[in-house]
Amino acid sequence: MRKNKIKEMMLNNKPVLNGWLQIPSTVSAEMMSHENWDSLTIDMQHGLIDYNNALPMMQTISSTNVVPLVRVNWNEPGQIMKILDAGCYGIICPMINNRKEAEKFVQACMYPPDGFRSFGPMRGFLYGGSDYPKYANEEVLKFAMIETKEALDKLDEIMTTPGLSGVYIGPADLSIALGEEPGFDKSENTKAYSEICRILDYSKKNNIFSAIHNGTAEYALKMIEKGFNLVTVGSDHRSVITGAKEIVDKIKGSLKRSDNKAY
Amino acid sequence: MRKNKIKEMMLNNKPVLNGWLQIPSTVSAEMMSHENWDSLTIDMQHGLIDYNNALPMMQTISSTNVVPLVRVNWNEPGQIMKILDAGCYGIICPMINNRKEAEKFVQACMYPPDGFRSFGPMRGFLYGGSDYPKYANEEVLKFAMIETKEALDKLDEIMTTPGLSGVYIGPADLSIALGEEPGFDKSENTKAYSEICRILDYSKKNNIFSAIHNGTAEYALKMIEKGFNLVTVGSDHRSVITGAKEIVDKIKGSLKRSDNKAY
Amino acid sequence: MRKNKIKEMMLNNKPVLNGWLQIPSTVSAEMMSHENWDSLTIDMQHGLIDYNNALPMMQTISSTNVVPLVRVNWNEPGQIMKILDAGCYGIICPMINNRKEAEKFVQACMYPPDGFRSFGPMRGFLYGGSDYPKYANEEVLKFAMIETKEALDKLDEIMTTPGLSGVYIGPADLSIALGEEPGFDKSENTKAYSEICRILDYSKKNNIFSAIHNGTAEYALKMIEKGFNLVTVGSDHRSVITGAKEIVDKIKGSLKRSDNKAY
Amino acid sequence: MRKNKIKEMMLNNKPVLNGWLQIPSTVSAEMMSHENWDSLTIDMQHGLIDYNNALPMMQTISSTNVVPLVRVNWNEPGQIMKILDAGCYGIICPMINNRKEAEKFVQACMYPPDGFRSFGPMRGFLYGGSDYPKYANEEVLKFAMIETKEALDKLDEIMTTPGLSGVYIGPADLSIALGEEPGFDKSENTKAYSEICRILDYSKKNNIFSAIHNGTAEYALKMIEKGFNLVTVGSDHRSVITGAKEIVDKIKGSLKRSDNKAY
Amino acid sequence: MRKNKIKEMMLNNKPVLNGWLQIPSTVSAEMMSHENWDSLTIDMQHGLIDYNNALPMMQTISSTNVVPLVRVNWNEPGQIMKILDAGCYGIICPMINNRKEAEKFVQACMYPPDGFRSFGPMRGFLYGGSDYPKYANEEVLKFAMIETKEALDKLDEIMTTPGLSGVYIGPADLSIALGEEPGFDKSENTKAYSEICRILDYSKKNNIFSAIHNGTAEYALKMIEKGFNLVTVGSDHRSVITGAKEIVDKIKGSLKRSDNKAY
Amino acid sequence: MRKNKIKEMMLNNKPVLNGWLQIPSTVSAEMMSHENWDSLTIDMQHGLIDYNNALPMMQTISSTNVVPLVRVNWNEPGQIMKILDAGCYGIICPMINNRKEAEKFVQACMYPPDGFRSFGPMRGFLYGGSDYPKYANEEVLKFAMIETKEALDKLDEIMTTPGLSGVYIGPADLSIALGEEPGFDKSENTKAYSEICRILDYSKKNNIFSAIHNGTAEYALKMIEKGFNLVTVGSDHRSVITGAKEIVDKIKGSLKRSDNKAY
Repeated sequence: MRKNKIKEMMLNNKPVLNGWLQIPSTVSAEMMSHENWDSLTIDMQHGLIDYNNALPMMQTISSTNVVPLVRVNWNEPGQIMKILDAGCYGIICPMINNRKEAEKFVQACMYPPDGFRSFGPMRGFLYGGSDYPKYANEEVLKFAMIETKEALDKLDEIMTTPGLSGVYIGPADLSIALGEEPGFDKSENTKAYSEICRILDYSKKNNIFSAIHNGTAEYALKMIEKGFNLVTVGSDHRSVITGAKEIVDKIKGSLKRSDNKAY
Repeated sequence: MRKNKIKEMMLNNKPVLNGWLQIPSTVSAEMMSHENWDSLTIDMQHGLIDYNNALPMMQTISSTNVVPLVRVNWNEPGQIMKILDAGCYGIICPMINNRKEAEKFVQACMYPPDGFRSFGPMRGFLYGGSDYPKYANEEVLKFAMIETKEALDKLDEIMTTPGLSGVYIGPADLSIALGEEPGFDKSENTKAYSEICRILDYSKKNNIFSAIHNGTAEYALKMIEKGFNLVTVGSDHRSVITGAKEIVDKIKGSLKRSDNKAY
Repeated sequence: MRKNKIKEMMLNNKPVLNGWLQIPSTVSAEMMSHENWDSLTIDMQHGLIDYNNALPMMQTISSTNVVPLVRVNWNEPGQIMKILDAGCYGIICPMINNRKEAEKFVQACMYPPDGFRSFGPMRGFLYGGSDYPKYANEEVLKFAMIETKEALDKLDEIMTTPGLSGVYIGPADLSIALGEEPGFDKSENTKAYSEICRILDYSKKNNIFSAIHNGTAEYALKMIEKGFNLVTVGSDHRSVITGAKEIVDKIKGSLKRSDNKAY
Repeated sequence: MRKNKIKEMMLNNKPVLNGWLQIPSTVSAEMMSHENWDSLTIDMQHGLIDYNNALPMMQTISSTNVVPLVRVNWNEPGQIMKILDAGCYGIICPMINNRKEAEKFVQACMYPPDGFRSFGPMRGFLYGGSDYPKYANEEVLKFAMIETKEALDKLDEIMTTPGLSGVYIGPADLSIALGEEPGFDKSENTKAYSEICRILDYSKKNNIFSAIHNGTAEYALKMIEKGFNLVTVGSDHRSVITGAKEIVDKIKGSLKRSDNKAY
Repeated sequence: MRKNKIKEMMLNNKPVLNGWLQIPSTVSAEMMSHENWDSLTIDMQHGLIDYNNALPMMQTISSTNVVPLVRVNWNEPGQIMKILDAGCYGIICPMINNRKEAEKFVQACMYPPDGFRSFGPMRGFLYGGSDYPKYANEEVLKFAMIETKEALDKLDEIMTTPGLSGVYIGPADLSIALGEEPGFDKSENTKAYSEICRILDYSKKNNIFSAIHNGTAEYALKMIEKGFNLVTVGSDHRSVITGAKEIVDKIKGSLKRSDNKAY
Repeated sequence: MRKNKIKEMMLNNKPVLNGWLQIPSTVSAEMMSHENWDSLTIDMQHGLIDYNNALPMMQTISSTNVVPLVRVNWNEPGQIMKILDAGCYGIICPMINNRKEAEKFVQACMYPPDGFRSFGPMRGFLYGGSDYPKYANEEVLKFAMIETKEALDKLDEIMTTPGLSGVYIGPADLSIALGEEPGFDKSENTKAYSEICRILDYSKKNNIFSAIHNGTAEYALKMIEKGFNLVTVGSDHRSVITGAKEIVDKIKGSLKRSDNKAY
């Protein structure tokens, strides 16, 4: 089976740079896949992407060596198994609150006896190879998102779930859970920041991977330095907005100034 | 009929800032439509967009006051009429070489007796209003692209075509036609630059609008200063690549430097 | 945040006229959105519409001031949150049986601490505005469908669910639950009619909105008079059938009569 | 090969009732196909429908005995042949001006030696049967639209084109060609009406079928009486608008009246 | 209501030959539907097919008398009801472990008082007829997949679930559950084979239908002989691979041999 | 620029095995791309595939080293240029009759000064590399189909067209042009066979590549032996039908025999 490149990187203490896809198009996905990310996550939760788009996006990404991940929109076995069959090499599952939910998630990703995934990895064979069934339980990454009040009280019971690869922090939901404003790149004086540090510590203690979503490259670098194994920065959708704003502001701003000068 | 905002701007000597859509998705189109462009062009020629995507993209753009334009992939009446029926307020037609082609293009955009457009403006009614048939010939912009050797020899015969609104310059094809490297934002010592200036002069002389495609806001501002009525800068697709490159370079670059330091 | 127009209408005792979309097309959706409905509901339960269609339909409707609602196909948080992120301003949830289900539904629609909705309102920002997160819990309508035997026994416990905006009656399922034939516009001697009246009374008592699905404008007017805050009449799909039947019957009927005369 | 039911009807002097599809959806197409039309035309010209929608719409219609026709958007062999391969049993081609164009159209519909259609009728085999190649030239209907000034001067040369099945009148374009307002169901004092009558006469003289687009069943019946072989009435898109208007007007009208009474 | 042809066949002890669809296309679905299968199952679990494809595939299949079935990807009422509304005549539900799950599944397929299916069978009416509501509970087949360890211990409690039509065996998952290699057409010395026989016996004892997935026609015939009521063989996706392999092997093999001979 | 693998093979006298795609799905395309074809042609003429499907199919194929070709549906520059921009490495153009048509085709595939292709190779850059513009004229294969009477009379004038890579024979159309039954794998006593041999001879004489469509691997091997550079065998669509027929015949045949035995 094709090795999970980013799993190996993390095992070797190499930080993983993950890109984020929220536009439902193979065109933006393909362009992103040529930009030297280590992995790309198709966001089926807040991204405007459903299975019908995620499938060809995953097929398209497969033309490069970027590892395809998916964030599902809920801890539902049917959805998780279907996107795994479509060849994704890691699942990020939102809103894991406790051990029971963590087990339900992780076991949906693994064939018996480790879990209850149903057999039929159509694209798993194509992308992973004919021995996919043998190694998939191990190679597929399973990240639980820690972002609710309940989860914060149950870090150990979640993180010791057999088969769980790591935790993924969504700072926006985490902030809301703590009564703070949603947002990325939390400053050090926030409760969210403290909790991010605590989650990181627990992940180290429990010997699982840690990942975090960031707004800027600068903050992501800081998080890598702190010890996070995987960082996500920006998204295709964010780039479209930022790129447009920059051009429009420059031109409209300049035109306004000339207008003002004129009178 | 809803007025063509950018036509009025150009008539009032206000420069028009046009955005460019090449990703076949209503999601990127909608985000772009919220970024204060005066108009957005759906590029059905080099963009990876077909009618089936262009239609809902146009419907989506209609939620803002950004004017929807389309670049068709060829001077074909069936294609032009169909996209006009879908509610677009201006056509940019590539590779117009001479008067005959210019007439074929312009007349495909107008109902008799001015042209031979067939009647049935389904979304024209919805977007433009119930009196669309009465004013459409006038309100719909018709831009001929000047980008071939033959066209450079026939500027006057093309520009005097009755009903033609203006010319649109694609610097890449123009450069190739002149034996130079394709690219935007041509420097002043190129043949392409000279021809761009000449086309601009002819458009002024013939009292039609002039438009040009640019790579950067800076160059576009320069073109506005020179007298162009409409400037296009960048594209959704370009923003995705640029945004990704910036993040990836920053992070991978920084990691590389730390790696080097480490040993 | 853009105000929820129909919420304001209902608060001001103005009856809301809601249209119903069951054809998976932006074309029919756009036509409907130009016809002066106060709101339009995309029916993802019995309508033949999935997320991939609902998204561009919602984008298209946004070009008018018609309020976009969605009926989900089941009380599933992942589905509900995803369609809310896509910018819908109200959810109608089928088959709510009791308080626990009502709470699960309502809380999926609200950010903490009121609920457990996950943060990332992509189109919420575009359609609602940048302060969407602050007001969304309040502005988004949450209608529970009352249509099962169990629910009829638990009207108060359902209707007092914190955050629930109102109840929506589907007369067909209600009829079946009561052992009667499915159908709209129930006559006064049916059990379904009695229950509809009782649900209405309970909604008034509990100070929440009431809504009902109708087959004809006449019946809907009667329901408005009885005190319902929102009425749905017909659907795009129903209009296509009715319109076709009328033409076909008229012509085939007339041809048959001539044929008979002929011999 | 499956017989072309409406061709047989017309040969037996039975009027054909044709429905019209402009919404790009298999859902509306299927509903229409159950409503007892003799044939249904997928309008790829002014309808908002492209090949990607037309194909499954045609597949869906095939579940009934309604004959599938297509109006192409232009007299282009590639487009015509492709939609014929998709199993349509008749083409309506817009804007035929003269003999040359008529021949180009008709021959694109027929295999050599009668025409230059290329061989590969994928759905032709499925829908028509394995002997499709043998009979297709004959069974497939070819209707030329007569709607331009030039065509009105060349009725005979067009109508005598070998292989042409009939003419189809689009009253809107015809009206514009004559300097009148576009519209259906022309009154008897219009030039368009006179020309409609003249075209009908010429079709009888030249022994080919005649067809006309109508706004109402009443007018269509009148046209049948005048001798037209095929009449089209309304469209799926028209029904959606009409159905919505009727409901909205009734309810909003009634509410307005109560409002007025109230004060 | 249109009779469920394969239900009648099974009642009359006629073996049913079921085809399997895993390619999300109306084109492959239509070709399959013309090949004399008794039924075709759209595999929404391991097949790469979502609702948006399954709907037009089902509409397309309806042009033949092949019975449309669906395998859902999980025991979710929303998903099951939606695909039933789309006109499917039987559901195969994966991973049924016990009585409670079996009841949840079966009742999602039936209107009250037998179950809790919600009313609104849009394509049910078109495909089944106007009396669909009256007979649907009975005509729609409900197959529970027996493929987990837990299920093997609870055959009787599952098989006696009121309304359950039969059991469907997926040999791959069954094998994994038993600690054997996944695969079809199990040889007689495997545990899976013994369990297949035992499940078959229990189905006979409990007087419900039995069905099994096979890799080859030969094995399927053997299963028919053993008493299975319905056999599935291969899939569209399998045929594409097999067909390609055969051609490529023959040609590349032959070329290699010539190459070898040459030197 | 990524080399055109099959061009190099042909230059080195290695026969090319080409597969054929007629199902509009990335799923069947991806499966085919893993089966060791040298190239795969997306058939946009008789295949049921439009641009909207061809684009993601091409993206999907790019995950392997199979060379992507396209057969366009007509000699239209807009269509040809658009599909080249989407990254295809060769065009097969149907129905080339003479030198003028051949030049129009070939020049649409090449940038000036060799042709009149417009610049903007979006996926050309991604698939081919950043120096795509420099080498594309040369690397992209241009095959003219020889299949009409007129073409048979003008072999030399067509084959000497500057830039033309080769000729592609469609035996079905060729047969019809010669008054014979359409079909592949023509026997030696047919006129079509003689013409195939003559076309082959002319291609050798004119030093261009020759290609032919075949029904079976056996015939294709014979054609390779005769000297053809590229052979196409079968198609995804053909495999689906053949695979189904084989299973159905075996099972229904066997059941029939048992039935007969039984009585």
